[in-house]
Amino acid sequence: MTITRRGFNKSLLMAGAAAWLPAFPQTQLRVNGQRLSATIGALSEFGKNPEGGVSRVAYSEADLKGREYVTRLMRRAKLDVSIDAAANIIGRRAGSENLPPLLFGSHVDSVPQGGNYDGVVGSLGAIEVAQTLEDNNATTRHPLELVIFQNEEGGLIGSRAMDGQLTERELELVSRSGKTIREGITYLGGDPTKLDSVRRKRGDITGYLELHIEQGGTLEAEKIDIGVVEGIVGINWWDVTIEGFANHAGTTAMNNRQDALLAAAKFIQRVNQVVTSVPGRQVGTVGRIQAWPGAPNVIPGKVVLSLELRDLDAAKIKTLYDRIFEAAQEIGTASNTRFSFNEINVNIPAPTDERIRSVILESARELGLSTKLMPSGAGHDAQDMARLGPVGMIFVPSVRGISHSPLEFSKPGDIANGANVLLHTLLKLDKTL
Amino acid sequence: MTITRRGFNKSLLMAGAAAWLPAFPQTQLRVNGQRLSATIGALSEFGKNPEGGVSRVAYSEADLKGREYVTRLMRRAKLDVSIDAAANIIGRRAGSENLPPLLFGSHVDSVPQGGNYDGVVGSLGAIEVAQTLEDNNATTRHPLELVIFQNEEGGLIGSRAMDGQLTERELELVSRSGKTIREGITYLGGDPTKLDSVRRKRGDITGYLELHIEQGGTLEAEKIDIGVVEGIVGINWWDVTIEGFANHAGTTAMNNRQDALLAAAKFIQRVNQVVTSVPGRQVGTVGRIQAWPGAPNVIPGKVVLSLELRDLDAAKIKTLYDRIFEAAQEIGTASNTRFSFNEINVNIPAPTDERIRSVILESARELGLSTKLMPSGAGHDAQDMARLGPVGMIFVPSVRGISHSPLEFSKPGDIANGANVLLHTLLKLDKTL
Repeated sequence: MTITRRGFNKSLLMAGAAAWLPAFPQTQLRVNGQRLSATIGALSEFGKNPEGGVSRVAYSEADLKGREYVTRLMRRAKLDVSIDAAANIIGRRAGSENLPPLLFGSHVDSVPQGGNYDGVVGSLGAIEVAQTLEDNNATTRHPLELVIFQNEEGGLIGSRAMDGQLTERELELVSRSGKTIREGITYLGGDPTKLDSVRRKRGDITGYLELHIEQGGTLEAEKIDIGVVEGIVGINWWDVTIEGFANHAGTTAMNNRQDALLAAAKFIQRVNQVVTSVPGRQVGTVGRIQAWPGAPNVIPGKVVLSLELRDLDAAKIKTLYDRIFEAAQEIGTASNTRFSFNEINVNIPAPTDERIRSVILESARELGLSTKLMPSGAGHDAQDMARLGPVGMIFVPSVRGISHSPLEFSKPGDIANGANVLLHTLLKLDKTL
Repeated sequence: MTITRRGFNKSLLMAGAAAWLPAFPQTQLRVNGQRLSATIGALSEFGKNPEGGVSRVAYSEADLKGREYVTRLMRRAKLDVSIDAAANIIGRRAGSENLPPLLFGSHVDSVPQGGNYDGVVGSLGAIEVAQTLEDNNATTRHPLELVIFQNEEGGLIGSRAMDGQLTERELELVSRSGKTIREGITYLGGDPTKLDSVRRKRGDITGYLELHIEQGGTLEAEKIDIGVVEGIVGINWWDVTIEGFANHAGTTAMNNRQDALLAAAKFIQRVNQVVTSVPGRQVGTVGRIQAWPGAPNVIPGKVVLSLELRDLDAAKIKTLYDRIFEAAQEIGTASNTRFSFNEINVNIPAPTDERIRSVILESARELGLSTKLMPSGAGHDAQDMARLGPVGMIFVPSVRGISHSPLEFSKPGDIANGANVLLHTLLKLDKTL
């Protein structure tokens, strides 16, 4: 990167200082934290809920309007903005050499009743980085592409279109907006008949960087500034069906029951015991449960519940699953019920690039920020970009670890720190990749 | 009871035998089991499901047509049939003395996807008894009233109108037929504006007898012919709310969760432990559960479940509840969740009359049938009649204890035994009450 006199970041220099500095050292570059806070505040108006937070689900009007706002910011940063056929927003900044682009970005869609930080910090942080580069007339060797992926919350749709994972069948699924994904892509200005045009292959990108809130409470609890993501965990999801026998709750003696919900209760406890019985950061969750017939006066004859296991190590997930499966058979035998497991979805773990992790650590250290290597327990667009090239992710603390909630919050200072780490990681990678 | 020659039950006598018997001894009277089986089969056509069993929910067309069939049978038995303002069908048979009537009967409405025996056995058994009395020209001291109560399954509506428990507010509740109870009463030929006319007070009836299937598996398992019901259990139902904190299932470490469903799982197990920790026939059931937000990738922040406890002894229910409540507080403290209990409904236990129990036992013994004293774990119209006078209930075995299911079944021989016990109990009570 070269910085001309015209591009001095005046806010960082004393009045008149520009006159005697022939070139502004790039290590002194800083994003404008106040401006970043202001854009986060402005975006939070799109889909704002009366009770706090936002519902800016993909393909809603709020999503469309929020994207228009973000597009204006990208144009203000002099990016060459377009909407690709998958409806991702791409802001391109030319590089000085003919190299595959360096990508960075995130998403601006939210879950229903979501918060103002998930995706937003990374998207507006990336735009703030682009604006800072523009303000300082910086040039890079690589072309830069700032990507606002569409519908991250509904299944990483935009990034999965880019790495060719999105199927025709998925286009017909109805998203939370009520529109099918196909309709949603058209609604946002894409063209679902031309998805081939957005597909990239390994090597088509130099790398991908994403800034994001942690969504967990580790950084805050340990008073760490920056999380350096080791990888995005694998996620395995099964639906577990437990079959007993529905019968009259008044006339069926306790020792004569085949109570599917009682068996499910034992299972839920065993899942917790198995997952916490070994060291590590693996998690296991039963988040959904339904019991039939579901009346207070009938012994449940059938229960279906979800089982989700996450870890950076696919082999560890397998080991935990095997132990849970075995426990289920024991419970079934003891309670005269039958357990069956149906694998619904598997996301394999996506490790980040070791070189990029080193550069993030170095950038944070030079900014005087403390760091911690950690997995991302949540899925991110970065996991799909990892199929196309090396990726890195930068986490900033989430207050109380709350996410996907109106209570989601990250402090402006922490967000600015994250954006500065993003800026300097990008600049260093531009030199080394 | 007096039996004239004209009334001899010819099926029980050899041809020509009537000529030399001046009076037929009442102890020799028997119902016609084949006729009873035939009427049970005929009623099962009303609301018949293709996959077996019936859906003859109260106030449905099937219910109306089934009642019309039953009314024809009652008229054939020479009962004076009317529909009261609450839409109960009442078939009156005059007595020789001016006494409060002896009531007997049951119901013909079913649960959705129900069976062909619950209520039906008692209703058609009662009609078979009336037909047998008529065939034999029997007279009784007391007027007899055969009652087919309406909407037993939807909350003992007909019997609760008779003992004045039915409220104006309940009339507006929507029943499973889609009609409000008020609309349903009108649909069946009642008049919901004149419910006062059906109210009776203690002493207005001499007693009430009901034959019913056991709906549990005890009689069949122990090879007993007749259950003599000690009382109808009290039923207490609470909704239990468990509040934790909904959070991201990927990013929230296992030791940092407030998982309402995990706490619920521990609670469900403790309910079972507490209920089975003391001797007796008490039962406790968690039949309904809902977890919010209910997604595989979100730790449940809130669970609502039902807790139902039943026993003949209200004090025992209270003791069990206290222990469950205490266990819930322990679980809440240990798991950083909060339990709260909301009492939804209380039916106090309704003991049957000791004299009537003795007469049922004696009648069964004289018929050569084995007996067992037992509680009724299910609610019955008899529990409301117990507010008006002494009641008794006669149970016959349910195959495999299955009820409220198309698989519900009782053997014709067992049903005929029950009807004979009903007949002779009625005749004995007519003499002694």
